[in-house]
Amino acid sequence: MGEFELIRHYFAAAPCAQAGEGVALGIGDDCALLQLPAGEQLAVSTDTLVAGVHFPEAADPFLLGQRAVAVSVSDLAAMGATPIGFTLALTLPSAESAWLAAFARGLEQMAQQCAIRLIGGDTTRGPLSLTLTVFGRVPAGMALTRKGAQVGDLLCVGGELGDAAGALPLVLGQRQADPAVAEPLLARYWSPLPQLELGQALRGKATAALDISDGLLADCAHIAVASGVALLIEQAQVPLSAALQAFAGSETALQCALSGGDDYRLAFTLPAQHLPGLQQAGWPVRVIGRVAAGQGVTLLDEHGQPVQPLHSGYQHFGSSSD
Amino acid sequence: MGEFELIRHYFAAAPCAQAGEGVALGIGDDCALLQLPAGEQLAVSTDTLVAGVHFPEAADPFLLGQRAVAVSVSDLAAMGATPIGFTLALTLPSAESAWLAAFARGLEQMAQQCAIRLIGGDTTRGPLSLTLTVFGRVPAGMALTRKGAQVGDLLCVGGELGDAAGALPLVLGQRQADPAVAEPLLARYWSPLPQLELGQALRGKATAALDISDGLLADCAHIAVASGVALLIEQAQVPLSAALQAFAGSETALQCALSGGDDYRLAFTLPAQHLPGLQQAGWPVRVIGRVAAGQGVTLLDEHGQPVQPLHSGYQHFGSSSD
Repeated sequence: MGEFELIRHYFAAAPCAQAGEGVALGIGDDCALLQLPAGEQLAVSTDTLVAGVHFPEAADPFLLGQRAVAVSVSDLAAMGATPIGFTLALTLPSAESAWLAAFARGLEQMAQQCAIRLIGGDTTRGPLSLTLTVFGRVPAGMALTRKGAQVGDLLCVGGELGDAAGALPLVLGQRQADPAVAEPLLARYWSPLPQLELGQALRGKATAALDISDGLLADCAHIAVASGVALLIEQAQVPLSAALQAFAGSETALQCALSGGDDYRLAFTLPAQHLPGLQQAGWPVRVIGRVAAGQGVTLLDEHGQPVQPLHSGYQHFGSSSD
Repeated sequence: MGEFELIRHYFAAAPCAQAGEGVALGIGDDCALLQLPAGEQLAVSTDTLVAGVHFPEAADPFLLGQRAVAVSVSDLAAMGATPIGFTLALTLPSAESAWLAAFARGLEQMAQQCAIRLIGGDTTRGPLSLTLTVFGRVPAGMALTRKGAQVGDLLCVGGELGDAAGALPLVLGQRQADPAVAEPLLARYWSPLPQLELGQALRGKATAALDISDGLLADCAHIAVASGVALLIEQAQVPLSAALQAFAGSETALQCALSGGDDYRLAFTLPAQHLPGLQQAGWPVRVIGRVAAGQGVTLLDEHGQPVQPLHSGYQHFGSSSD
């Protein structure tokens, strides 16, 4: 048995690879087999993480395993879906057992937290990269999409933004910080917990939703285009963590929140009548603006006047784009 | 819009990316949404192809697009599943429009032939590689797996073997040949048509099945292990094409068939009573041996005596394994 064949057996033996609800056949045949309850649809999403582009080549494998599952499952949260399973296509320059063991532990931990099962995959030799395809279920017609925001809806997010982007100097080892500041920021970068329960609670309430991966402004632009509306964001209402402001200063903190990306929190539009119920139930719903007629995303200052953001859009680790 | 964002729009506009049966929501949201007819299960498989490992770096992009779809969909054929859709995770060093246009044409052509739709994906910057995840549907409990071969069953394959492995010197430009010989071999390497209809015809008849990707001997060993049986292969019954024998000679042709891999034809075990019906219906069923009590795969000569194969197993382009 070759070393890569051994890796396949290794993952097949992981606790998260054992049969579970919705998985009729797991790892080990030509295909896995999933079953869906009657009246449900299957939500599917694929994400690739490339070493040197989406994470540092020397990334801690435990943290990388956690992050790979988290950022992929976040797309299920954005649809209001309940996780079923995922496939892992892992390309590695060589089979190093310590690296693999740590990676598998991180993968396992986040898979357990998200209640998602490893159902198949492929392990190949080549430059380090990972492609995860995630599967979830959602009642037919109830998935949250980017299309459907209505003029008058509130624009909301699922919590503080910008921490992951703000953490980049720590991730890259360019800066140090007191653990009380560094740890929460690094945790938001390496193990952003997908907002699965929030997504499910928003079914039948939110009119449009997505998870923020490219930055608040860029992702809100996706909702605006898909829904054919304008989104107005009150800059002063964008939630920023104390840790981020302490580490980066208020101005950089705001830029991280607007344009940094990698938040993996939900952004959604909500008819105002649903707000009190969600907030009373304890959901982390933060109103940052509203939906208006028109197009595009406009940032407003405290007087309701448009602000020109310093820059917007997609900013990955180590790369200007992609 | 960055160049990689443009690529995403490019694929989203492909004919094979438009909505179709079973696809409730295609490219462009956080997830695609699939629906399954009542009583059916979803078959899922992931395959990665890495440049320099699974195909030459300078591979013709049209042929690469065809091959990527074909080898992935072949896993659906092996389960007896009907294709629904696939996701494409494409990692590219740079966005070259001529390369992309040719790749997309090849992808489109094979997707049309297999009646499968592109439902989502990710495009990232990095060393060239592709991960496809394919989805199909199969009546619940009817999928063909590797487990279930019964003592006394016939061992069959879906046609001539070894052409793709035999074509490697042509693929790599190490040898030339007369077009009448070269073209059928190269076609078997670059565009192996998945045996979808055969797989579906075998539902309820074959007791175990898979598609031959690692070589006949190695893949039969997977059936033997999963089913807890021995497989006996009559060497003289292994079907070889005239083109392969002309190009490689009979001895090398047989080795390509036994151990070469990349055939993407089905191998399956079949109770003998089903053979006449399948053959009369015109299915390409070639009997090469039988299932016996015991374990492992044994090759038999014309006197029914065990033969030691020269070598067995997994042999990719340019690499001893993986």
